[in-house]
Amino acid sequence: MDPFADLIAANAEYVDRFRLGDLPAPPRRKLAVVTCMDCRIDPLAILGLEAGDAHVLRNAGARITDDVLRSLVKSVNQLGVERVAVMHHTDCGAAKIVLSELRAKVVEATGNDPSAVEFHLIDDQAAALEADVEAVRGCPYLPPGTEVAGFLYDVTTGVAEPRHHATVG
Amino acid sequence: MDPFADLIAANAEYVDRFRLGDLPAPPRRKLAVVTCMDCRIDPLAILGLEAGDAHVLRNAGARITDDVLRSLVKSVNQLGVERVAVMHHTDCGAAKIVLSELRAKVVEATGNDPSAVEFHLIDDQAAALEADVEAVRGCPYLPPGTEVAGFLYDVTTGVAEPRHHATVG
Repeated sequence: MDPFADLIAANAEYVDRFRLGDLPAPPRRKLAVVTCMDCRIDPLAILGLEAGDAHVLRNAGARITDDVLRSLVKSVNQLGVERVAVMHHTDCGAAKIVLSELRAKVVEATGNDPSAVEFHLIDDQAAALEADVEAVRGCPYLPPGTEVAGFLYDVTTGVAEPRHHATVG
Repeated sequence: MDPFADLIAANAEYVDRFRLGDLPAPPRRKLAVVTCMDCRIDPLAILGLEAGDAHVLRNAGARITDDVLRSLVKSVNQLGVERVAVMHHTDCGAAKIVLSELRAKVVEATGNDPSAVEFHLIDDQAAALEADVEAVRGCPYLPPGTEVAGFLYDVTTGVAEPRHHATVG
């Protein structure tokens, strides 16, 4: 049994009703959204977007890492994006996980010690969101005028609360 | 005028019909999907998923970077994920962008030279997908038995073609 058979079967149904073959690569709304990998977050639905509207970048915690920045540099300089929304969320694993427990689980499951891995955990959710907005604003490879917002998404209510706004410049 | 006003207004409508407040954090389908930030990709729709089913990780090119791996280590060891689908796509900016042109655009727009940035561009799409599947399979912090698949999504047809399957072990 193929462990991915459910995805393959579902994609066949998607293909039957597919009508998006002519979408251009540059996002229609000139928007990039950076959010967490958390399964409870459907960023397109939360922000009223559809396919074609926005770049979506996701990792554990919606942290602004080198990987996110190198992606945004392409998004803004090559694909016409002019605004970046960073959306953290309540009840985030990056803020709940205790590093020593995560390390112990990895050692038990794999025999390998992940002490060299930077997990980008969050001590203070409000401060982390502000720091991540500032990390985008301060990126030297994004042009002046690029707009940056920080949102906090509440997984129990669906509210994406605007918390910060900054402009590269 | 708030440059993010459209998102804030759309979220108010989302909140009015929000019914997902009780979703648990561990993904129901024990699945993580790694795909590109490309605006034409709606990974939940493409693979028949809904909120609550899967972690979704996205960057430019769906490349398996340190940021993706540290996120997957949490996903698998802490949140019950047992399978990882890496989904590259046709017409990908990471494969079309010429590094010298990107650098020239950044220098022109910002005055700063991004030569120190690793952009993880793709020379050969098929080889890059295989390498990225192998990068997940070879991660020393994922337990034996974790399943890894490589898909190539065709942005003109909607088909997510299974190309690779590997098991951590």
